[in-house]
Amino acid sequence: MSERKVTIEGSGKHCHVTRETLDTLFGKGFELVVKKMLSQPGQFASEQKVTVVGPKGQTTLSIIGPCRKADQVELSYTDARALGFNPPVRESGDLKGSPGCKLVGPKGEVAINEGVIIAKRHIHLTPEDAAKFGLKDKQNVKLKVGGERALIFDEVVARVSPDYATFAHVDYDEVNAAALFGETIGEILD
Amino acid sequence: MSERKVTIEGSGKHCHVTRETLDTLFGKGFELVVKKMLSQPGQFASEQKVTVVGPKGQTTLSIIGPCRKADQVELSYTDARALGFNPPVRESGDLKGSPGCKLVGPKGEVAINEGVIIAKRHIHLTPEDAAKFGLKDKQNVKLKVGGERALIFDEVVARVSPDYATFAHVDYDEVNAAALFGETIGEILD
Repeated sequence: MSERKVTIEGSGKHCHVTRETLDTLFGKGFELVVKKMLSQPGQFASEQKVTVVGPKGQTTLSIIGPCRKADQVELSYTDARALGFNPPVRESGDLKGSPGCKLVGPKGEVAINEGVIIAKRHIHLTPEDAAKFGLKDKQNVKLKVGGERALIFDEVVARVSPDYATFAHVDYDEVNAAALFGETIGEILD
Repeated sequence: MSERKVTIEGSGKHCHVTRETLDTLFGKGFELVVKKMLSQPGQFASEQKVTVVGPKGQTTLSIIGPCRKADQVELSYTDARALGFNPPVRESGDLKGSPGCKLVGPKGEVAINEGVIIAKRHIHLTPEDAAKFGLKDKQNVKLKVGGERALIFDEVVARVSPDYATFAHVDYDEVNAAALFGETIGEILD
């Protein structure tokens, strides 16, 4: 239990889209082009970008593939405020009551009724690492980071699945607040 | 020692200027106009704004009065990166080796050789509150905040002076990372 270390990655603003939304934005049957594989197995940053239109402004986001069951736009508070959104802090997929927006692609646009969120900080864990660390799926833990902006994140949700690789994810406001630049290791505390 | 509570304020990007710089930017003998008194006694947000020019962009900042002994530009990492700066995290006044920039006002401009910093998070304390809390000037403490983005800031420097009122200051990356919106109270931990 003494070596509960995890690599922390910063997630920039991005979106996930359904197969149907991708059809509308980029054309029927369009396939996302892999730009860079991400740390979570099978997940990738695509070459495709969409424009997200909010009440006060718009911005361009990368689509993370593959397609999912729901459209979801993940912003930091810094991003959200510039666009005029006031999204809730949520786990991925928990979209009920979150703001909607317009997504614009080269072939069409889609108005979504919900899906704009601030991602709740979280740690993806393999079942093996979760067992080693003594953590359960959905458990809230603390994550301690050092350096000149050292801090302890609380309310970090552990998520356990054989589909995951063990990495913690925070957004860029959190990266900046903790000066998490370069390779950053956090320590999980109860 | 059990009730070490302090109100936390978010500091937006701003600058401090010397009397000489104010003369150059706004005209000889110009006096800053108070827009809003701040929590620290005698300090105010002025009506006057200057343009800060960095390697990659420029932005407009409010001047905090009254004039000081050195020009100083305080940015968040979010601000700094947009302008192309890579400033150090420093206490106010500790400017050695920090980046310079160009400041532009309505009557002239000034190139400063240093002065662009990311403010180190800090707690201003009256000597009375410092004594009550058992804290010394320059002591690093932790500051715990609750809510849905609860966290414990470490490396928070206590600064004690009869010229201060007791308030903690963080920047907007830190406000966003901790969701410190509205009236926010932190608890000082050792």
